[in-house]
Order: sequence, then structure tokens, then C-alpha cells
Amino acid sequence: MSIFGSSTNTLDDLFVHGLKTIYYAERQIAETLPKMIDMATNPELRGSFEQHLRETENQRTRLEQVFRMHGRAPEETTCPVIDGIIKATNATASDIDDKQVLDAALAFGAQMVEHYEIAQYGTLIAWAREFGRDDCASVLTETLAEERATDEKLTRIAEARINRAAEAQTG
Amino acid sequence: MSIFGSSTNTLDDLFVHGLKTIYYAERQIAETLPKMIDMATNPELRGSFEQHLRETENQRTRLEQVFRMHGRAPEETTCPVIDGIIKATNATASDIDDKQVLDAALAFGAQMVEHYEIAQYGTLIAWAREFGRDDCASVLTETLAEERATDEKLTRIAEARINRAAEAQTG
Repeated sequence: MSIFGSSTNTLDDLFVHGLKTIYYAERQIAETLPKMIDMATNPELRGSFEQHLRETENQRTRLEQVFRMHGRAPEETTCPVIDGIIKATNATASDIDDKQVLDAALAFGAQMVEHYEIAQYGTLIAWAREFGRDDCASVLTETLAEERATDEKLTRIAEARINRAAEAQTG
Repeated sequence: MSIFGSSTNTLDDLFVHGLKTIYYAERQIAETLPKMIDMATNPELRGSFEQHLRETENQRTRLEQVFRMHGRAPEETTCPVIDGIIKATNATASDIDDKQVLDAALAFGAQMVEHYEIAQYGTLIAWAREFGRDDCASVLTETLAEERATDEKLTRIAEARINRAAEAQTG
């Protein structure tokens, strides 16, 4: 099965395919985050989803900029990985009544999304640098920094839960 | 759709579901890595896949240990995320003739796997600590350290490619 439509002979072809994939993924994420915001209870978690939604819209715009810098029209290619993350998170969330447990499942889904994006953008940046397009790499690096910051924020929210649970057990 | 079979009311239920998911994923990874080793050309990349294969077998054993510590028999649950990563990597790889471009695509697939595992194990460790099972968290932390080391190794291999490309351009 070919997901490229045409054959992939250069790193440049791989790069453009990666751009199309993450451009599709960012739209899927933008459509999913409002549902996650509605389901979340913890104010910090909701705040992190709201911030991620605003950033996602910016990140789509940055991808359109990189497509144009690279002489291509912005275009999407479906990605079974982001589809799988959204499917798994929906399936888990639909099965949970307890609000705190639901928050934990949603935070996990969000962290899966972040790691997917960190792997995607990290690789696109490396490929752009490899074929001498530091200008494209530089734009994508802004997004990678945002994804890493969101992942760290989600980790801090999880740490706060662990500390509260420990206090409840000892106090 | 329920992926749990029964409803998920506690963090403990989520934890057990996560164990089943990653237990399934580790088997999928163990079955896929030999094909990636066969396809890879760069000796460092092949070496990293071979090491990851040996570690994956150990990581399955560690998961069986955590299942037992938690009073459960080891059991798998299918995971659309790892299925998506393998599907995307296969589709990309089958479309590439150039050996260096194929290496780049395989390295990207491997890095997606690592980030998936980092997100999964990181969350399982946080949940185990949250409900007071530092013993389970401790076993899983050994695996997380291996996944992070593999991800860093793949990044170093990509950096070496970038440096060689830069030398070729200037030299």
C-alpha cells in the first residue's frame, strides 16, 4: 500500500509527506480538544487544553507557512497514528463515570498527542536541517518548543495529583 | 464503544487497562523490529534496533512481573495507536527504494514507537504512585529509562546524518 500517491525517492519527499501528515493531525487535534475541554473537570487541565487549542490553530498557520516556503500548497494526508490516539482516548473516556478518573484518562490522551507531535516535529526539523533548509527548521522549532512546554505542564498536573493523593494517605 | 469490557471506575482500573495495552504493544514491537533490522542499512541504526529488540523482550517480562505484583494474570488489549504506528511505517517503507531515505523513514518509525512508549510508561508510573504502589512504579521506571535512552540514541544517529550532510555541502 502506498500512502504517498507517488514514490518517495528523496528526503525532501519524506519531509513533504511528514508536513501533510502533521497538517492533517493538527486539524484532528483542533476538532477533538473542544470535546476534551467539555469533559475535563480539573481547572488546570481544562486550562492546559484551552491553551493547546489556541496553539494548535497557530501551529496550522505555521505549517502553511512552511509549505509555501518549500514551494508547495498546504495539503493533508490521513495519519493512522493520530486517528488511533483519538479513537483510544474516546473509547476510554466514554467508559468512565468518575470525574477524577476521567481527568486522568483525558490527561493521558493529551500526553499521547504531545509525544506524537514531539516525534513528528523533531524529525521534520532534523530532515529540514539535513537537506539544508534551516529556514523551515526554524519555523517548526517554534512549534516543537510549544509541544514540549505543554507536555511538561501535563506532567506537572499529574505530579500535583500524586502529591495530593500522598497527603490524603498520610494526613 | 467500550475497550475495557467492564466499566472503569477507579485509577486502578485505568492502570490495569494501560498495562494490558502496553503488553500488547510490546509484542507488536517485538514482531516488527526484526523486519526493520532486515530493511535498515546504517550499521548504527541496525544496532539500535537490535538492542531495542533485546530490551523489548525484557520489558515484556517486567510487565508480567507488575501484573503479578498487582494480583493479575498478564493479559493483552489491542491498541489502535501502536497499530497505527506500525501501519504508517510499513506503508512508508514499502514505497522507498533509496537506502538512505529508507533508513530515515525507519528511524522516524522507531522514534514514534519510543515516544508512544515514553508517554505510556510515564503515565503508568504516575498512576501507580498516585494510588500508592511505588513498588510497581519502580519496576516500570527501569523500562522508561531504557526507552528514553533509545530515543536519545536515535536522535544522535539523526544528528550524525545532519553533520555528514553539512560536511558534504561545504566540503
